[in-house]
Amino acid sequence: MPEERIASIAVTRVARDSVIRNNDVLAVEEPLEIRVAFEEREKNISVTMRTPGDDFDLAAGFLFTEGLIRSATDIDSIRHWGSPNVVRVALRVPLDSSRLDRHFYTTSSCGVCGKTSIDAIRVPGVAPTVVPVRPSQELVHRLPQLLQQHQSAFQATGGLHGAALFTIDGALLRIREDIGRHNAVDKVLGSLFRDGATPLRDSVMMVSSRASFELVQKAIVAGVPAMATVGAPSTLAVELAREFSLTLLGFVREGRFNIYSGDVTS
Amino acid sequence: MPEERIASIAVTRVARDSVIRNNDVLAVEEPLEIRVAFEEREKNISVTMRTPGDDFDLAAGFLFTEGLIRSATDIDSIRHWGSPNVVRVALRVPLDSSRLDRHFYTTSSCGVCGKTSIDAIRVPGVAPTVVPVRPSQELVHRLPQLLQQHQSAFQATGGLHGAALFTIDGALLRIREDIGRHNAVDKVLGSLFRDGATPLRDSVMMVSSRASFELVQKAIVAGVPAMATVGAPSTLAVELAREFSLTLLGFVREGRFNIYSGDVTS
Repeated sequence: MPEERIASIAVTRVARDSVIRNNDVLAVEEPLEIRVAFEEREKNISVTMRTPGDDFDLAAGFLFTEGLIRSATDIDSIRHWGSPNVVRVALRVPLDSSRLDRHFYTTSSCGVCGKTSIDAIRVPGVAPTVVPVRPSQELVHRLPQLLQQHQSAFQATGGLHGAALFTIDGALLRIREDIGRHNAVDKVLGSLFRDGATPLRDSVMMVSSRASFELVQKAIVAGVPAMATVGAPSTLAVELAREFSLTLLGFVREGRFNIYSGDVTS
Repeated sequence: MPEERIASIAVTRVARDSVIRNNDVLAVEEPLEIRVAFEEREKNISVTMRTPGDDFDLAAGFLFTEGLIRSATDIDSIRHWGSPNVVRVALRVPLDSSRLDRHFYTTSSCGVCGKTSIDAIRVPGVAPTVVPVRPSQELVHRLPQLLQQHQSAFQATGGLHGAALFTIDGALLRIREDIGRHNAVDKVLGSLFRDGATPLRDSVMMVSSRASFELVQKAIVAGVPAMATVGAPSTLAVELAREFSLTLLGFVREGRFNIYSGDVTS
């Protein structure tokens, strides 16, 4: 397996009666811009957060499964284009632009994916508003149970993500569920935003999913200083959390968790 | 909890030594279009697949966490707009269109979300190419292990989704991993597409995630007649699978699975 798909990162592993500092292996997350070209025209079709590797398969698969091309012979060439995070697909046939307009979220030239740095993907104009917190270890251990207690639909379906915001003392501020983890987080933060409660200082967000770049970004914009997830974070989620001093905790379950950014109190 | 978030659906539960027909409760998945209006201008900002409920929180949270609005007072009103799947946010301030252009995948007027029917969200122009298959029960039980055997990065990170395509006899055709389940599927299908191997008749796709509408749609476009997932399907995934005669199996793990669409042989 190419090394680019995984990366080693320093982590603090906390259990009920032990704290160990060592390394953890995380899935790499980077943006990929897919561009298509036909004759003189060139167009950005999609920006997706993906794990590097098999980028040409991804670009071809995306264009095919979204109905934009029909046959392998529609493709003249596929190559990286000035960056490992940009793929350009040269076509032998024009895209059906009505299909494109009807079914795609076309990106205007965003200039995001020509850079690997997270600098380029930040929400623009957002000043770092995170005031760091150190949640107590005892609270972190309780978070999965607190989320589950209040998350009713998951137990019925096994299919809904839950996101909940707690005070640093463990009091529930808001909880929401959705089939999409980013939607569950948007619902929680949007509800508190509508109440005029942002920035959400001295709070901890617990999410039933993994931690992606996107979730950390949303937390930071809302001023949430700590995020805990049941699953693993991506590399880019950790980088962003560290840059903005957001406390990021992963694999929070069964009396254990990993600290990827920030710290907790014992 | 509002009933709209979950739905009951007929299912066949298969274990090593029993087959039971009863009902399963699934998470509802529907598209939501978020529109913003300021003075005379109106614009579609986003189409997202979400679970209905708290739509106004979702719309406000999305606009806020993506940096498009800063304060609750930026919002004049939020309401459903001609459909339970369209939310219109009237603003008191203009959107910064440079921010919008730089960071968003703007949807052209797609007309998708004004309808609840899946008819409207199909990839256009795609004829139903699925030739139904009935995988053997024995093969289905083996799929999780077959996927895991070949999926190396997940075991290292716990953070990568795997997708693999097998022949109906269980021979591996292609496997790919990605932090995004839709990317993993695009990589598998794109790789075979580039080889000129589509439509992928007499095959079974195993995916380590839940089954969303989007994954089923991608399988159907590629002619894949059967999909098995470790997690739960959404309501819309099941509806689409049934309409196109794709065999859809969920919770495929530990010697059990559920049949949501199609059938298996014993």
